[in-house]
Amino acid sequence: MKNSSIEALLAVLGKSNISPFDALKLLNSHLTSDLGFARVDTGRGITAVLPEVILAQGKIPEEVLKITGSLFSRTGLAIVSRTGEDLSRILLEAYPEGKYSKRGKLFVTGEYMRTPEDDEGSVAVVSAGTSDLHAVEEASIILETMKVDTRRFCDIGVAGVHRLAEVLPSLRECTVCIVFAGMDAALPTVIGGLYRGPVVAVPTSTGYGTAFGGVTALLSMLNSCSPGICVLNIDNGLGAAAAALRILRGSE
Amino acid sequence: MKNSSIEALLAVLGKSNISPFDALKLLNSHLTSDLGFARVDTGRGITAVLPEVILAQGKIPEEVLKITGSLFSRTGLAIVSRTGEDLSRILLEAYPEGKYSKRGKLFVTGEYMRTPEDDEGSVAVVSAGTSDLHAVEEASIILETMKVDTRRFCDIGVAGVHRLAEVLPSLRECTVCIVFAGMDAALPTVIGGLYRGPVVAVPTSTGYGTAFGGVTALLSMLNSCSPGICVLNIDNGLGAAAAALRILRGSE
Amino acid sequence: MKNSSIEALLAVLGKSNISPFDALKLLNSHLTSDLGFARVDTGRGITAVLPEVILAQGKIPEEVLKITGSLFSRTGLAIVSRTGEDLSRILLEAYPEGKYSKRGKLFVTGEYMRTPEDDEGSVAVVSAGTSDLHAVEEASIILETMKVDTRRFCDIGVAGVHRLAEVLPSLRECTVCIVFAGMDAALPTVIGGLYRGPVVAVPTSTGYGTAFGGVTALLSMLNSCSPGICVLNIDNGLGAAAAALRILRGSE
Amino acid sequence: MKNSSIEALLAVLGKSNISPFDALKLLNSHLTSDLGFARVDTGRGITAVLPEVILAQGKIPEEVLKITGSLFSRTGLAIVSRTGEDLSRILLEAYPEGKYSKRGKLFVTGEYMRTPEDDEGSVAVVSAGTSDLHAVEEASIILETMKVDTRRFCDIGVAGVHRLAEVLPSLRECTVCIVFAGMDAALPTVIGGLYRGPVVAVPTSTGYGTAFGGVTALLSMLNSCSPGICVLNIDNGLGAAAAALRILRGSE
Amino acid sequence: MKNSSIEALLAVLGKSNISPFDALKLLNSHLTSDLGFARVDTGRGITAVLPEVILAQGKIPEEVLKITGSLFSRTGLAIVSRTGEDLSRILLEAYPEGKYSKRGKLFVTGEYMRTPEDDEGSVAVVSAGTSDLHAVEEASIILETMKVDTRRFCDIGVAGVHRLAEVLPSLRECTVCIVFAGMDAALPTVIGGLYRGPVVAVPTSTGYGTAFGGVTALLSMLNSCSPGICVLNIDNGLGAAAAALRILRGSE
Amino acid sequence: MKNSSIEALLAVLGKSNISPFDALKLLNSHLTSDLGFARVDTGRGITAVLPEVILAQGKIPEEVLKITGSLFSRTGLAIVSRTGEDLSRILLEAYPEGKYSKRGKLFVTGEYMRTPEDDEGSVAVVSAGTSDLHAVEEASIILETMKVDTRRFCDIGVAGVHRLAEVLPSLRECTVCIVFAGMDAALPTVIGGLYRGPVVAVPTSTGYGTAFGGVTALLSMLNSCSPGICVLNIDNGLGAAAAALRILRGSE
Amino acid sequence: MKNSSIEALLAVLGKSNISPFDALKLLNSHLTSDLGFARVDTGRGITAVLPEVILAQGKIPEEVLKITGSLFSRTGLAIVSRTGEDLSRILLEAYPEGKYSKRGKLFVTGEYMRTPEDDEGSVAVVSAGTSDLHAVEEASIILETMKVDTRRFCDIGVAGVHRLAEVLPSLRECTVCIVFAGMDAALPTVIGGLYRGPVVAVPTSTGYGTAFGGVTALLSMLNSCSPGICVLNIDNGLGAAAAALRILRGSE
Amino acid sequence: MKNSSIEALLAVLGKSNISPFDALKLLNSHLTSDLGFARVDTGRGITAVLPEVILAQGKIPEEVLKITGSLFSRTGLAIVSRTGEDLSRILLEAYPEGKYSKRGKLFVTGEYMRTPEDDEGSVAVVSAGTSDLHAVEEASIILETMKVDTRRFCDIGVAGVHRLAEVLPSLRECTVCIVFAGMDAALPTVIGGLYRGPVVAVPTSTGYGTAFGGVTALLSMLNSCSPGICVLNIDNGLGAAAAALRILRGSE
Repeated sequence: MKNSSIEALLAVLGKSNISPFDALKLLNSHLTSDLGFARVDTGRGITAVLPEVILAQGKIPEEVLKITGSLFSRTGLAIVSRTGEDLSRILLEAYPEGKYSKRGKLFVTGEYMRTPEDDEGSVAVVSAGTSDLHAVEEASIILETMKVDTRRFCDIGVAGVHRLAEVLPSLRECTVCIVFAGMDAALPTVIGGLYRGPVVAVPTSTGYGTAFGGVTALLSMLNSCSPGICVLNIDNGLGAAAAALRILRGSE
Repeated sequence: MKNSSIEALLAVLGKSNISPFDALKLLNSHLTSDLGFARVDTGRGITAVLPEVILAQGKIPEEVLKITGSLFSRTGLAIVSRTGEDLSRILLEAYPEGKYSKRGKLFVTGEYMRTPEDDEGSVAVVSAGTSDLHAVEEASIILETMKVDTRRFCDIGVAGVHRLAEVLPSLRECTVCIVFAGMDAALPTVIGGLYRGPVVAVPTSTGYGTAFGGVTALLSMLNSCSPGICVLNIDNGLGAAAAALRILRGSE
Repeated sequence: MKNSSIEALLAVLGKSNISPFDALKLLNSHLTSDLGFARVDTGRGITAVLPEVILAQGKIPEEVLKITGSLFSRTGLAIVSRTGEDLSRILLEAYPEGKYSKRGKLFVTGEYMRTPEDDEGSVAVVSAGTSDLHAVEEASIILETMKVDTRRFCDIGVAGVHRLAEVLPSLRECTVCIVFAGMDAALPTVIGGLYRGPVVAVPTSTGYGTAFGGVTALLSMLNSCSPGICVLNIDNGLGAAAAALRILRGSE
Repeated sequence: MKNSSIEALLAVLGKSNISPFDALKLLNSHLTSDLGFARVDTGRGITAVLPEVILAQGKIPEEVLKITGSLFSRTGLAIVSRTGEDLSRILLEAYPEGKYSKRGKLFVTGEYMRTPEDDEGSVAVVSAGTSDLHAVEEASIILETMKVDTRRFCDIGVAGVHRLAEVLPSLRECTVCIVFAGMDAALPTVIGGLYRGPVVAVPTSTGYGTAFGGVTALLSMLNSCSPGICVLNIDNGLGAAAAALRILRGSE
Repeated sequence: MKNSSIEALLAVLGKSNISPFDALKLLNSHLTSDLGFARVDTGRGITAVLPEVILAQGKIPEEVLKITGSLFSRTGLAIVSRTGEDLSRILLEAYPEGKYSKRGKLFVTGEYMRTPEDDEGSVAVVSAGTSDLHAVEEASIILETMKVDTRRFCDIGVAGVHRLAEVLPSLRECTVCIVFAGMDAALPTVIGGLYRGPVVAVPTSTGYGTAFGGVTALLSMLNSCSPGICVLNIDNGLGAAAAALRILRGSE
Repeated sequence: MKNSSIEALLAVLGKSNISPFDALKLLNSHLTSDLGFARVDTGRGITAVLPEVILAQGKIPEEVLKITGSLFSRTGLAIVSRTGEDLSRILLEAYPEGKYSKRGKLFVTGEYMRTPEDDEGSVAVVSAGTSDLHAVEEASIILETMKVDTRRFCDIGVAGVHRLAEVLPSLRECTVCIVFAGMDAALPTVIGGLYRGPVVAVPTSTGYGTAFGGVTALLSMLNSCSPGICVLNIDNGLGAAAAALRILRGSE
Repeated sequence: MKNSSIEALLAVLGKSNISPFDALKLLNSHLTSDLGFARVDTGRGITAVLPEVILAQGKIPEEVLKITGSLFSRTGLAIVSRTGEDLSRILLEAYPEGKYSKRGKLFVTGEYMRTPEDDEGSVAVVSAGTSDLHAVEEASIILETMKVDTRRFCDIGVAGVHRLAEVLPSLRECTVCIVFAGMDAALPTVIGGLYRGPVVAVPTSTGYGTAFGGVTALLSMLNSCSPGICVLNIDNGLGAAAAALRILRGSE
Repeated sequence: MKNSSIEALLAVLGKSNISPFDALKLLNSHLTSDLGFARVDTGRGITAVLPEVILAQGKIPEEVLKITGSLFSRTGLAIVSRTGEDLSRILLEAYPEGKYSKRGKLFVTGEYMRTPEDDEGSVAVVSAGTSDLHAVEEASIILETMKVDTRRFCDIGVAGVHRLAEVLPSLRECTVCIVFAGMDAALPTVIGGLYRGPVVAVPTSTGYGTAFGGVTALLSMLNSCSPGICVLNIDNGLGAAAAALRILRGSE
């Protein structure tokens, strides 16, 4: 945070006749990433790397519609995750230009306003098989919506190591590598040994019995023999996209 | 089980004046692997693939000594597993010809009486790193005591796949492959994709935190993407040796 | 892997004008079991013991159809596991000669090309009760599709040990014994004490409450008092079949 | 509880000048098994089937000594469970006639006052191996202190079913059967199929890895295929003895 | 097992010309509780305390019908547990005299042949609230089918201890006390302190969140402060009935 | 938070020449409970209900000494929890007036500065047995150090409900009731049914086997049949004291 | 409990000719909170802080109706929790004046009879987002039915700390603060550092994967860095309301 | 991977007379990160982002010494993690210039050869309290050894949010932020809301009871409300350093 903006703010505060409590709110807003404050502050404010995404799970349709409307009208973009088919129909009726991915359970309407820098790099989205595609889809659509150069490498099982070898050169050209894997999740370990860049591993709920809905894949990833593998929650494609964005677009 | 031996037995029973209860015991012995019965039956009886191994854990030294004595005197061989250093000193005092492996916590005295067949094949004992050697040792010494052609391939981490490639030809010459791995246990999956024979996977307690003392490795192995990987209890080198013996020396 | 074939390959590589990258791919294929490479190498190549099986779970019908088509056209055989009834109808429409087992949730079309050797032995498929039949079915159909001599021994509860005694002689004639059991899974321990050959134990999800969907049976099997019992994932009939194939048809 | 004794009590209360609060205490005592009340009621009061046992774990020696003294002076008998060797020395100094079992971690001083009925039956204490003896010892000493006809049947592994067959007739003469087993705990299931009487199963902490300190044995017992097996906490020999006493000496 | 019957059997075996293998089967049958053998042996044979109960779970309707038919025709009684409503309709069509309890998911047809002894005592079936009635029902119907004097004491919550006090005198007249409780399962501990006889505790799946489908109740019961509480699997009313029968009707 | 104090603060800020960044810090301090700010603000600042307590676990002695010194010199009071005996000796050397409770693993030096109000009520500290005293001690000493009227009611087992009845009148006079219990933790449920005030339940690590170091007691408390029982972490006497202080001394 | 009321009772008992057993019941009722006794005792009796709430889960509609009728006729108020929509229709038919909250799954009919004291304080009901509203609703409706001054503060996520800052002054005016949070449940920790009063934390089942249906939120709350946070079962809005009532309306 | 280097290699291979098998090894080395190959290829080879670190755990001192020697002689740097004090003495004797951190259990000897680029950014190492310093130390020393600009921000508890606010501006200047937290691990969520860059979260084993040795912190982090938080294994400071290196120094 730049001292100069605070200096300016406090200079205004002391001279103005705004209430002390409003002043407190302004200062707090400054510290965190309140979008309202950012508008006042001529758009240079501290915005998060990923716009707020609406988690549909546990919300009734009216609530989802209201929050979608508020976000869309203020920012020109609204993303709703974990959207079932029934809800998607309601959303598509309200936003006919929106797009719904049944597999990724993701609804997107509008466009991301910011133009990314030219040389910010690209993200590889890798998966072991076609059973992980629900999470792959969630991550990829989020990244593409955020205008990231996204490249998919699907069906690269470790049991057939040669398939990985084929895509390795392309994969090494990417800045970040997101790896989706279920069951024993051996793929991130092998990739981690062959790829030097950041590896974001996402366990998927693929499998049965002692796959425990992705817990085994999660544990396997956390104990990877390749050092420096980062792990996210099970099926958390959205989180993986956010992690990649944090790496690509950085702290400033 | 041959019908002929039972036939002979029952023929004797009807004519003899042994008590009915003793007859029952004999029949039961026949079904299971009572070594006593095997002696009567001129050594061709139904013996297990592995002689009884004494689990030292939970026993007091006097008990271990007594059972060791009983087994050694009857069969010429006694194996004590999970033997701490204190107990090993007591055993070595009683059996100065015995051998103790501190790493494998295994004490062996005497010699296995049976000569294995020439062409029964060999067992590959594979491990990912030097931290798994306690279990590797337990399996290897049991196998060697049982006069199995045993070949060790240690320190074959998946992070460096090339090391595996180097030993693959030798490994493919073995009849059975026992794989020890801790942490994320990715090794059996990769081997299972490159080696067609039976793979006996043993999770080791190597690692920390969410390695959960080998549980993560176990779960990873049970969910291997390579089909047909068999799994044993954590650090169960003894069980892996027994499984290999079952495969090598078969059901007859 | 035979050095000679690599020698031949590299001899070709050096002289030919194929691109270096294609050469790399060929070498990698050689290391792993790429069926394409094997064909070039006069059919003796390194093929896996079990053809690839399509896991329907987590795939949409179109994907299953596409992969089924690709496998069927290349190998003359396609096996789809965890196939629900809806999917089975779609598959049967596309492959009217195919067969669907509702119980084993398995769809098979085509025929395995390889003729097994005469003396490769047989597999006993044993289960404790009629509640385990879904997994029994999966294993048996896979084995039969692979042209293995398969013998079923069902409803052999440990509570009535005499039933086991009756089938024991026939069971001892088999080369491998696959045991399915749920609840307390005491059966493999008792069989392991009476049968010398390899025992492949598969926990089933039979039971309720603290059966924990098969976890209790799994843990019980992993801690069997009979040494050398190998364990697979819960309800993993397919894996058990693969394990038996690895033992029967071996590493070469 | 007999209405007559309450009747008598309330008759006294109404006429007497004891304080209302003391009356309340008396009534409460009546409901529960307050030994004080039992004294007033000429010793026929409601006593528990097992005298209070002092759990040494978590208590400092002075406290154990004080409670031991109180129990011993009031009832002529004191039992201290989970007693380490250091504490045993302190207790033996205070009660030189007392007896300490290092294996069962049990200290007993004094004598149980009540003479059991002649025909109350006997208790079989069965265990799979010598590694379960710590819990066997705890149960057996408690039962013997309570003057129960106790019969031990040790080292009856399920892997060797014939050993069980040998003791089965003697076992069937017992009224209650307590079974101790660790690892896969298959023994209670087999006994439960061969013995009609009450089976009290106690998992022991014997084993390693996925034995999980007795949890696997516990789960196995709770899911026994033989119906009606009762289960206690891991290594709870004391509880098993109490359960047997409840069955033998009943509710009146 | 009486030696005399074996003596008789072996006398016959020696003289007869039955095949040795059939003789082995007979002996094994004798050891276990094969009902066929018991018929030959003039009905005094070793029968289990509870007839075989058919677990409907995991079986297809045809199988349930077949086993029901076999049991009913041989013993005049068939009990099917975990029976859903669809299956109940099929069973009631086949056995119009049968009875189905929707709550207890139990189907019973026929009658138990044996007349219990006059003084065998009674069983108290206690539950904390109306949410446990599914398991209460299963236990009670089994007991009543087995002609046991069964007394229900429902809705005795520990939060209102006075309700327990009211029924305590009647409860103390019973020989065995089965207690059903979910959530924190405090009831068996309080009863265990007020009732001297055998307490069979059954955790129920009542509750939500950290009730974990009955696991919390199970753990609470296993750690009861009142010694000698026996525990069964979650919702296992059938097992509780069998345990009570074992206590009531004993080992001979 | 009073607007007036912020108003005053901002009035000062605008006119003064303190740096904008220091102003920001001051405002942040105001929001949270920075003791420095409170001093400036004439002592009425926002202080937490419990002074910071130093958790010795995971700190080296030098660090504990430094933080103790800082707290003691600024506030006249320092409390160190989870203090082993070795550390206690070092602390007592530095603060000879301090007091150490070996059982509660608590070191206290200095005095709490604030005089509590006369009518703030009292706290009952209840435990089931003498094995829970380590946590009882931690809570009681914290409360007494904070000058709370603390009353201990120990050894009130549920198995003997009459003991609870005796102390119930005194217990009902207390404003808050902290209950410590291990094993099955039935005590808070029974108290919750007899006592109307706030019940703070603390599971203790008393017990063995499936007590799981207090997890069973925790789960039992979370599922109490008596509504409104609040639960803290295992053995968390300090937290219970803080919870009682929050209730007693409130939000202003 | 006042001695005087017991004194009066016992005075009556002694002189009256009521049966001794009825006297026992009366005394027991006195000790616990039997509502019947309270009516006799002119309403000053010991009633619980919250009337009995009917848990619909696990009960059939007829039972719910009967208990509702009994409670409503005796107390003029009936609350049914965990009420599905089908049941709500049946209840609304029987009690057309009743109210049903679909979100909170709560049915209420009648009115709470007692008038709360004027200065008893208020309860803040705080939640992190709109996905926790099912539990928020349950707690709020219970509190409002009990005539508690209830204030809701929803959608105060920790990721945007400024939102919390805005409501902090109003929150500090409340006597008790109930906090609902799912996922990582960081909210109670932050509130616990800024608010001095009692914090009742309720984990919600919001989230997926390793949220484990609220278990992660529960564990997070139990390990809060802010001391004195009290925790309830997952989604237990009812329990939180009861805990708040215990604090507000106290022990007398 | 650049095609050109492979091209060069294969050109050499074809013409040279090196054995085909050695050629295979070279090619494999090329694919993975064999340091030997990198030397041949004039230092531009594919080396991993972090040199191999020796995990001392599970190795005997002689083995550690041998591997240390091999790494040190080949690369001029050796790092040994999880080094106890005994082992550190042995290592310091062999490498007197080495440095040992008792807290971080890390031994380092030699120097990292590569000079990092000027503008590669810096890493913030943040922790909640002094109890997490063991893992902080491991990460920081690794990073400093790798010549990364490392900045420590310790003792930033969430309970006192103002401390975080103070360091926020400096923290925002860093390229990557590693956050260590135990107990409820609320810190990464709050930082994730205030800091836009990549957040690498490491749960620590700080805490007791339901902290479960760091599992609760891990679960909390995986379910963070702030999207894009990456998680590593418990206490895995080494892994966090590697993850930061992957982000800083990238994939090329």
